[in-house]
Amino acid sequence: MHDLIIVGLGPAAYNCSLYCTRYSMDVKLIGAQPGGQVFMSGEIENYLGYKYTKGQDLAQAMMEQVTEAGGQIVYDTVDKAEKTEAGFRVHGSISGDHEGKILLLATGTRRRKLGVPGEDKYYYKGVTYCATCDGTFYKGLDVAVVGGGNSAVEAALYLADICNSVRIFVRRDVFRADAVLVEKLKKNPKITIEFETQITEIHGEEKMTHVSLNTGEQREIQGLFIEIGADPETALAKDLGVELDDEGYIVVDSGMRTNVPGVLAAGDNSTGSEKFAQIATAVGEGAIAAKAAHEIFQHS
Amino acid sequence: MHDLIIVGLGPAAYNCSLYCTRYSMDVKLIGAQPGGQVFMSGEIENYLGYKYTKGQDLAQAMMEQVTEAGGQIVYDTVDKAEKTEAGFRVHGSISGDHEGKILLLATGTRRRKLGVPGEDKYYYKGVTYCATCDGTFYKGLDVAVVGGGNSAVEAALYLADICNSVRIFVRRDVFRADAVLVEKLKKNPKITIEFETQITEIHGEEKMTHVSLNTGEQREIQGLFIEIGADPETALAKDLGVELDDEGYIVVDSGMRTNVPGVLAAGDNSTGSEKFAQIATAVGEGAIAAKAAHEIFQHS
Repeated sequence: MHDLIIVGLGPAAYNCSLYCTRYSMDVKLIGAQPGGQVFMSGEIENYLGYKYTKGQDLAQAMMEQVTEAGGQIVYDTVDKAEKTEAGFRVHGSISGDHEGKILLLATGTRRRKLGVPGEDKYYYKGVTYCATCDGTFYKGLDVAVVGGGNSAVEAALYLADICNSVRIFVRRDVFRADAVLVEKLKKNPKITIEFETQITEIHGEEKMTHVSLNTGEQREIQGLFIEIGADPETALAKDLGVELDDEGYIVVDSGMRTNVPGVLAAGDNSTGSEKFAQIATAVGEGAIAAKAAHEIFQHS
Repeated sequence: MHDLIIVGLGPAAYNCSLYCTRYSMDVKLIGAQPGGQVFMSGEIENYLGYKYTKGQDLAQAMMEQVTEAGGQIVYDTVDKAEKTEAGFRVHGSISGDHEGKILLLATGTRRRKLGVPGEDKYYYKGVTYCATCDGTFYKGLDVAVVGGGNSAVEAALYLADICNSVRIFVRRDVFRADAVLVEKLKKNPKITIEFETQITEIHGEEKMTHVSLNTGEQREIQGLFIEIGADPETALAKDLGVELDDEGYIVVDSGMRTNVPGVLAAGDNSTGSEKFAQIATAVGEGAIAAKAAHEIFQHS
């Protein structure tokens, strides 16, 4: 019986573990992808303190720090969670049962993909899913954004400030974004809007060079920002009766507490930080969750 | 006229600047202490990604990153803030007026001190103001906590897990802490409670060795955790009519927005992150504030 079980190995999970082991709590972390999205990020320039790092290097540094501080990491996929008399039990598909008095769900999100040929091959070789994170790597280049919502339109406007040209491919014939943003988009001479347009294939050599469209045409671009949303990983939350919002995110209060006593959530899968999915916000939420976990621990 | 004026040079200020300059916003930061509390911290082991760093080194790395990304730093004390037609004007005591469309107050807190001889001399040589931050540097030693509230009692309980012995000096003859915590404190064999006790002087050589008490006695300790609270720096917030809570902290919503449109607050001076004053939470709040600032910028 551990003091705290953490499901997930991203920065929210890691930072909660770091703080809780420093509070002398017994912490076990279970997850399949060490570093979470950090590991999957090619280059990172927006984590304060690191002017530049490869995602894999930062993920490795975080993992070593967490482990040396006492966090016990199990590499496994958790397929089930349930309430017990003394706390919670989660089931790892290989490692079996793990029990803890407190449970943190830091399972992240799964970014929505286009599902077209070349998308995986050119991931971080032209294809990215976050203009805020990766925009600066495409300064002066010709790029495109996929999507019709606020995040796609905001991405296009931001990219127009730093890139040579920006196309935005919208599946429907209208935007689902705020009118003021759409007005700015239409007025921006660097931005070309293509309605009723879908990418059918992403082409390139070492890096992405162009895309094919459902219209039969092709577009030469060096960067493609796929801004069509993400789906939080919340199967375990559902097992436990944890409240989700309309978009499926775990509802947390200002202390990262869910509606189920003893169950916390932090990182991209939660409503924390107004759903701004960044390493910085995940790290902050991990610390706040640790404070909440420590309070439960001291009061029990 | 800048897009964003930031008052403060701590991690919340720095991270907001980093994000906003990456959004192509024109950002000026004004503050007197580069790095804020980070610079004042001796050693840091709880900022994820840095297994160990000196506070000054981390502060320097952050400053360079922010500057290279385009943040314009002015070293000065801001003594006045006011609303203008187009945004906000702040006055630097040396540098004069600075104007911006959006204003972030990231002015931090001033930790309450005992005000006794030796307190400044042995700062980070035995004397600290944050058990969460610095406790692990005192493993196996004899330490004491000053304070009678929840944070003092939580600090003493936590330190009892890792230190050889813990004294807690309480000015009054009762605690102002949760009963369940006080019960645990009383039962813990490693903890000695000393009521109606105040430190009158802190002694040492290279490092702190003992303290004198108002009772005329002395106590040999290697670490002293002064947990008597902090006062947020909110003079500028008051200038602008920004709402404060009962303890004087700037009230922010989940997006770090105050009640005054265009004025944001982040870091230790705000009610964000349940007032858990950590580098991690400040960095998270800085990112969230940047998202809010960017939204105002794009919608204006």
